[in-house]
Amino acid sequence: MNRNIKLTIMYDGNSYFGWQKQKDLPTVQQAIEKAIYNITKENVNLVGSGRTDSKVHALGQVANFITDSSIPTDRFARAINSNIDTRIRIMKAEEVDISFNSRFSSKKKTYLYQIYNKSISNPFYDKYACFVPYELDIEKMRSALKLIEGEHDFKAFMASNSDVKSTIRQIYSTKIIVENSLIKVEIMGNGFLYNMVRIIVGTLLEIGSNRKEINVFKRAFELKDRNVLGQTAKAEGLFLKKVIY
Amino acid sequence: MNRNIKLTIMYDGNSYFGWQKQKDLPTVQQAIEKAIYNITKENVNLVGSGRTDSKVHALGQVANFITDSSIPTDRFARAINSNIDTRIRIMKAEEVDISFNSRFSSKKKTYLYQIYNKSISNPFYDKYACFVPYELDIEKMRSALKLIEGEHDFKAFMASNSDVKSTIRQIYSTKIIVENSLIKVEIMGNGFLYNMVRIIVGTLLEIGSNRKEINVFKRAFELKDRNVLGQTAKAEGLFLKKVIY
Repeated sequence: MNRNIKLTIMYDGNSYFGWQKQKDLPTVQQAIEKAIYNITKENVNLVGSGRTDSKVHALGQVANFITDSSIPTDRFARAINSNIDTRIRIMKAEEVDISFNSRFSSKKKTYLYQIYNKSISNPFYDKYACFVPYELDIEKMRSALKLIEGEHDFKAFMASNSDVKSTIRQIYSTKIIVENSLIKVEIMGNGFLYNMVRIIVGTLLEIGSNRKEINVFKRAFELKDRNVLGQTAKAEGLFLKKVIY
Repeated sequence: MNRNIKLTIMYDGNSYFGWQKQKDLPTVQQAIEKAIYNITKENVNLVGSGRTDSKVHALGQVANFITDSSIPTDRFARAINSNIDTRIRIMKAEEVDISFNSRFSSKKKTYLYQIYNKSISNPFYDKYACFVPYELDIEKMRSALKLIEGEHDFKAFMASNSDVKSTIRQIYSTKIIVENSLIKVEIMGNGFLYNMVRIIVGTLLEIGSNRKEINVFKRAFELKDRNVLGQTAKAEGLFLKKVIY
């Protein structure tokens, strides 16, 4: 009997070429599908809540697959973990309604972006944060970030090669937490365009160092022009933190 | 005029085959000496406070070298950092008395060992902690660890192939800090034998999981027998935190 299994997944983005299956390149989706094949002998289609780019990490990616196997649901996490390298960990496996789809059923997503802000970089954050040696005005960044909360047309906030139906997104909350030299930017929304978080953070860095005005996000909503905003911050600092259904 | 330059160094042990120069293998010492050569054209002998094994990290390794170059002391950190990969960072460069020797002048060293204690491992601690899925009795570990404080003959606490004059060492303080799933063991002493911290931690893990008695460290002092103690904990969890002069 077909069951729909929902997985909650953590991974270090440095070891894989992103989430999405690719020919000849190791990806997270492909590695998990292969582990499921080893266990069940089924070629499942693992549906992720969304793609993550190469070098982007996940603390709580969600994916689901339909299986006909008789393996008890609570065994799936351990069984997949035993068949996959430790840079990917299944934190939880649950049986969900057959209609559940990780991508289309998602209600909210939270992304975390880490900035390491000190005069000398830190080897331990090399692949887990964007290194910024110059001074940042955190209060200014917080005020600017607040401007993206609510429903807006984020057309200016995506990589120019994106192809989506609607560029309207709702941002529920934003915050910036400072822990010693680490600055954590968290953004929760109903969905995100391609590179949206990295463009927001890259722009914040220019605002925090007085290279852009605090109201640049407002101007971007009006002009819908990618060029109004700052550079795309590097992939290594980005974490898909949580997906809510 | 010869100057003696003291460097404080952070490095991720995963990218190098330990501190000590080796033929045909990249090491931290060799990488920094090469960077100094690039800057000064001098073949310096970089003296470290002690070796760290392959995969062992440093938050505050100290090393010094004698130079005849005219480069201002405060420029050395940046200059070396520009000539070396980001897995090694010089945090500070200071001029010290010509008699200063990183190895022989050291008074105290602090090591940190990280244990990741949860039922499922965490990809982000893979190379920075020892993963322990079983339950640990932290209070028992704390009590046992206290027994190594003071001056003792640590002959049982070293890899069997070690060759040292004296195995007497003084431990000034120990502590175990729990931060969510991360257990941090810190030990400060006047010096450490080869693999000493890793043997202490490996034994603590067996004490914390009721495989060894709380007084096993006392018995090891009496019997001076390596076999009394637990397994050597893996290198990846170990950090040379601080050297005091």
